[in-house]
Amino acid sequence: MTNSFFKNNGPFKLKELLKELDLNNNNNEDFNITDIKDLQNAKLNEISFFHSKKYKVVANNTKSSFCITTKTLQNELPKTCKPIIVDNVLVSTSIITAKFYPDSINDNFDTTVNDIVNTEFNNKVKFGKNVLIGQNVSIGLNCLIGHNSIIEKNVSIGDNCVIGSNAIIRNCLIKNNVRILDNCVIGKHGFGFFPTQNNNLRYPHMGVVIIEDNCEIGCGSTIDRGSMSNTIIGKNTYLDNQIHIAHNVRIGENSIIAGQVGIAGSSTIGNNVKIGGQAGISGHLKIGNNVEIAGGSGVIKDIPDNSKVMGYPAKNIRKFLKENR
Amino acid sequence: MTNSFFKNNGPFKLKELLKELDLNNNNNEDFNITDIKDLQNAKLNEISFFHSKKYKVVANNTKSSFCITTKTLQNELPKTCKPIIVDNVLVSTSIITAKFYPDSINDNFDTTVNDIVNTEFNNKVKFGKNVLIGQNVSIGLNCLIGHNSIIEKNVSIGDNCVIGSNAIIRNCLIKNNVRILDNCVIGKHGFGFFPTQNNNLRYPHMGVVIIEDNCEIGCGSTIDRGSMSNTIIGKNTYLDNQIHIAHNVRIGENSIIAGQVGIAGSSTIGNNVKIGGQAGISGHLKIGNNVEIAGGSGVIKDIPDNSKVMGYPAKNIRKFLKENR
Amino acid sequence: MTNSFFKNNGPFKLKELLKELDLNNNNNEDFNITDIKDLQNAKLNEISFFHSKKYKVVANNTKSSFCITTKTLQNELPKTCKPIIVDNVLVSTSIITAKFYPDSINDNFDTTVNDIVNTEFNNKVKFGKNVLIGQNVSIGLNCLIGHNSIIEKNVSIGDNCVIGSNAIIRNCLIKNNVRILDNCVIGKHGFGFFPTQNNNLRYPHMGVVIIEDNCEIGCGSTIDRGSMSNTIIGKNTYLDNQIHIAHNVRIGENSIIAGQVGIAGSSTIGNNVKIGGQAGISGHLKIGNNVEIAGGSGVIKDIPDNSKVMGYPAKNIRKFLKENR
Repeated sequence: MTNSFFKNNGPFKLKELLKELDLNNNNNEDFNITDIKDLQNAKLNEISFFHSKKYKVVANNTKSSFCITTKTLQNELPKTCKPIIVDNVLVSTSIITAKFYPDSINDNFDTTVNDIVNTEFNNKVKFGKNVLIGQNVSIGLNCLIGHNSIIEKNVSIGDNCVIGSNAIIRNCLIKNNVRILDNCVIGKHGFGFFPTQNNNLRYPHMGVVIIEDNCEIGCGSTIDRGSMSNTIIGKNTYLDNQIHIAHNVRIGENSIIAGQVGIAGSSTIGNNVKIGGQAGISGHLKIGNNVEIAGGSGVIKDIPDNSKVMGYPAKNIRKFLKENR
Repeated sequence: MTNSFFKNNGPFKLKELLKELDLNNNNNEDFNITDIKDLQNAKLNEISFFHSKKYKVVANNTKSSFCITTKTLQNELPKTCKPIIVDNVLVSTSIITAKFYPDSINDNFDTTVNDIVNTEFNNKVKFGKNVLIGQNVSIGLNCLIGHNSIIEKNVSIGDNCVIGSNAIIRNCLIKNNVRILDNCVIGKHGFGFFPTQNNNLRYPHMGVVIIEDNCEIGCGSTIDRGSMSNTIIGKNTYLDNQIHIAHNVRIGENSIIAGQVGIAGSSTIGNNVKIGGQAGISGHLKIGNNVEIAGGSGVIKDIPDNSKVMGYPAKNIRKFLKENR
Repeated sequence: MTNSFFKNNGPFKLKELLKELDLNNNNNEDFNITDIKDLQNAKLNEISFFHSKKYKVVANNTKSSFCITTKTLQNELPKTCKPIIVDNVLVSTSIITAKFYPDSINDNFDTTVNDIVNTEFNNKVKFGKNVLIGQNVSIGLNCLIGHNSIIEKNVSIGDNCVIGSNAIIRNCLIKNNVRILDNCVIGKHGFGFFPTQNNNLRYPHMGVVIIEDNCEIGCGSTIDRGSMSNTIIGKNTYLDNQIHIAHNVRIGENSIIAGQVGIAGSSTIGNNVKIGGQAGISGHLKIGNNVEIAGGSGVIKDIPDNSKVMGYPAKNIRKFLKENR
């Protein structure tokens, strides 16, 4: 994932990072670490993380100089990569990522915003009353932004886009001809954290929301940005009102999603998919192309291409209707 | 449907309309067409549309001078009505309706609004901060409008009404003693369009939302206006929070609808109906009077008067509970 | 329940109260009644209500001087307590409560608010544009309040709290380190009323919403305040987006509730409970500690501690999955 939105506060000395993890110093304590990335993308002088055997092959070939991992997994790393042994890789990774990218964990309201009349967009965009614009925002030609809407920092809007009223958008790439209706909240962090007694530990959300050309997002919908990847709404996909799209979800092109649908984290939805109202899709699933999911269904496993499903748990629609006369 | 809210941009010459549909000109090309209506209501010099055998009898008797229809159906029209042959009647009707009523397809934020302090309502209505009022708005006696609420164009509010804060209302007839709570969006176009690859074609929504006396609409609810008819909430019907009512839905009197319910397009709900939380009702259904629908149910067929149903698909509640111990 | 938020407009002469109930005067008509409370808490010179045999023992020992009750139940009251006989105890109680506490039935927008820049919080709180603050509001150290948010009257916010943008909060005790995200509406009255033809009778909501330390409330969520008790979110409990929590619900500590969940009135949820997305919980239920409820489930009966349930109606998860292959 390449993402210029969140500022890297590094480099940090290794000893600073170890201190964050309550680990003893070691010989390389003055080493400068420039960034944190996944095993595949991390390079020399960068730190990666390795928490599951699933990623063994990538771990064998990582170019990263350091890797947060466990006692058991450390032997999979090449000699060029120094293991940093911890009890819980994901928690430690979360702490280090938050150090490099503090903004990715902090979703406080954007204090950098200005009234649009005091920005470069005053003569370029057609806008309502009380519109606020943050830093690092770009807006294309022929766009409309409704009353009381807040375009917080790190938003790129293409040409011919329509943003409704009372919308809140941050950390979001909006392509051309997109319509985002009233009261949407787009680009906040996902519902991701490590549960701990008394004070859960939120993990970083460095991803963005990408909304491709010609999409429409209905009133009161929420689309959370990704954690280590992006949340993506494909070209010409239409969302009805009060839909919730969780972090890291990817939806294909030409899909139609009716009101009050919820899609849990990291699921992918294919092209030309139709989802009826109030249907729910569990996390980490793969819904194929040309799938039809009946309204009110609860999908808890992958759905192959060209299927029609219904029910909870969702199954073949004919089977469901036959069994439920 | 009579509706004075959307301005008729006609008349148009027949040749102008044919051009919109990419059709060849014909002998009547200079004929003036004044309006588009359904088969029953269209009159001399007006255009209608006829897309299904279901409407054969009405088609036989239409008074319209022209009718958008198919090769197969054209023979059902009287001799006084000239057929305009197209491949897809609804798509063509949509295009022509949009030409007569461009505002019915455009839900951009209302640029005509003024701060209420600069309107005739300044001394007549009790209002919060940052309230905006559009053109063609009327407000009765003894009304309250909360902070940041936007009453866009084409809204009529009766006496003793209470509008909460952060609400957005347009194209809506609100009778007396109605309460609309915070964060509602009422009167936007429905989720109706012709799906096409790369760029869906939205169809016109010329209807309004009508909210009868003594209703309450809960926080964060969305009620979409109708396409060719109106969306109606009957007298003394109460909606809880986060409810979605789609286009053309008609709900009767004295009904009670709990939180997060969704009602899909064009369904009708009777009087004295109770719907439990999170229940969903599919489109184009008829729910009778005195019906009780248990929370979480998914209704996919008509429900006769005085029934109690539960489950997905919703069935007789005793049967459902017996089968699901 | 002790609650200093709603002002007691009493005392009232007994004859004034009887007039509200359309009852004939009696010998004690000039007696001063100072407050209305439940049977257990009401004292000398106060009025209580008694509508069900269930409360017989408490009724036998009430200290209240008057009690709204029925002909059948009146004999359970001690001689020190004078019965006031009515047809419908709850309706009459509602009317009398509304007389003592008119603010508890009136959820009109708060006309007492001021722009935060004109309040004592101008230098104490970090805030966005257009933030409004009502009367009887306290805010602790190191708090943030986002753009367009409205903190209406009767709100106490602890230290280190973050309120997002476009939020509306009233009648609410927020402890420390709480995050309330964008577009939430917290503290409005519940969906409680006596249904009557033509004009439902709303009953008073004298409770508040209490949000304990370290909680997070997701975007677009609604949490209604209690009627005669409070709505409570326990310590370190996290709610995702678009959740609806009805009046009088109590949720324990360290619980995790995913997007679009709805919890109906007066249910209690234990500690360490996990509820998947879109699940619904009926009213007046008791969900134990350490319970896991699968996404999309519909819970219609009590769930004991340490259970995992799924389905509609929700049952043991293994049983459900076995039956629904």
